[in-house]
Amino acid sequence: MAREISRPTSAIGIFDSGVGGLTVFREIARALPHHPLIYLGDSARVPYGTKSPQTVTRYTLEAANHLMQLGIKMLVVACNTATAAALPALIEKLSIPVIGVVEPGARAAVERTRGRIGVIATEGTVKSRAYTNAIRRIDAKVEVIETPAPLFVPLAEEGWANTHVAREVAEIYLEPLIDSGIDTLVLGCTHYPILRGTIEKVVGDGVQIVDSAETTALSVKKALGESSGKGEPEHHFLVTDAEERFRRIAAEFLDHEIVNMELVTI
Amino acid sequence: MAREISRPTSAIGIFDSGVGGLTVFREIARALPHHPLIYLGDSARVPYGTKSPQTVTRYTLEAANHLMQLGIKMLVVACNTATAAALPALIEKLSIPVIGVVEPGARAAVERTRGRIGVIATEGTVKSRAYTNAIRRIDAKVEVIETPAPLFVPLAEEGWANTHVAREVAEIYLEPLIDSGIDTLVLGCTHYPILRGTIEKVVGDGVQIVDSAETTALSVKKALGESSGKGEPEHHFLVTDAEERFRRIAAEFLDHEIVNMELVTI
Repeated sequence: MAREISRPTSAIGIFDSGVGGLTVFREIARALPHHPLIYLGDSARVPYGTKSPQTVTRYTLEAANHLMQLGIKMLVVACNTATAAALPALIEKLSIPVIGVVEPGARAAVERTRGRIGVIATEGTVKSRAYTNAIRRIDAKVEVIETPAPLFVPLAEEGWANTHVAREVAEIYLEPLIDSGIDTLVLGCTHYPILRGTIEKVVGDGVQIVDSAETTALSVKKALGESSGKGEPEHHFLVTDAEERFRRIAAEFLDHEIVNMELVTI
Repeated sequence: MAREISRPTSAIGIFDSGVGGLTVFREIARALPHHPLIYLGDSARVPYGTKSPQTVTRYTLEAANHLMQLGIKMLVVACNTATAAALPALIEKLSIPVIGVVEPGARAAVERTRGRIGVIATEGTVKSRAYTNAIRRIDAKVEVIETPAPLFVPLAEEGWANTHVAREVAEIYLEPLIDSGIDTLVLGCTHYPILRGTIEKVVGDGVQIVDSAETTALSVKKALGESSGKGEPEHHFLVTDAEERFRRIAAEFLDHEIVNMELVTI
């Protein structure tokens, strides 16, 4: 099944627990259209959102080591749960720049808010209070209300993002946030941009959406400078299990079929 | 966090990828009220339903070895995906009786049907065609229609089993089965009994429900004979991660708080 792929050594490594980080991949590929990317999805151990911080940190370090061996020049942790749990450990242990999804989203939210920010994320991310802490470090006066929205992940993965069911689930999760007067909503899980259309309909024009995939891609672009290459780069996708499922969901998330996919053990 | 627990050596071992098998635990505890049970939930690696058969088999053998070291006298594989992938390997490798959830459900369905059986299960179980094969081995003339119902798992785990959203999702999954004229419906994932009330409302009186947790408990009772003990036995719960989440969901699935929980590495 796995085949030998010659890999670029100057690629950006993008890591996620599964398919959610493909929204970050998509935005980075848009922001840096000539840059080769290697995406690693730990589909054998997904989801991270319900696992303990210790376990998430261990898994993330293993994945980072795997990508380091392929010669990446920067690591993007395209998973909010992994960022919340493991970013300090990664920064300490890796010799290359590491960018997580929490800080760029927190920064963008503070720039846009008039004072009250809502954050939706997985159970693990909410428990870690990573967004509240990151936002308060930038501006201690901003109010932050975090709430888990766990059903958004399976709805995105099963292709139900634009259904009536998704709309109803979104209303149940988001109405308490709207009632509490948020003016900005951070999509604090990389799956959630897939439901952005549905979420926007529910929160209406009065609430600004911060998409952590978009804001992370901008941070990556800023850190690396303009993309200097030409033409279409070759991207690679590594998964730890269930290739067929990954391929199907990736085609939906990226709007095109993926090539260069490989099954790896990390 | 983990503490030393003295364990019975004549317990029945019940294994599941996470919390779903608690419906099987509940039925076995009802059928054999004096028998000690050890439940192992592999919450660090849940879900199995989207993983490859090779990976599921490897994980299941590791879990079975862990339970064997505790001295169980019978192993119940309370996970349809693990049963579908790993039952032959377990029977070959273990020296004690092994009961899966597929065969008892298939047998009960054949006994009740007038000719057309619907099966809802995870993606992995449906792909394995474990129910179709098991039913056809008993009666080759019975028609079987299998369909995945993946959103039922998060709906059960997040406590949404009796909501309007669950009802709508159930209608979307089940209406094609009803239209195709099934007279019997197998709940082919151990999470699904949690949604049984909602499922029954959707399929109506004309369709008989086969709950694989119930039928498996009856098989265990038949294999072991009547429970001879007296009084309340001591049950144990082992999990590989996220104890707090397990405790919360277990209280919902079992209708009471659990004691004797331990974090283990397998």
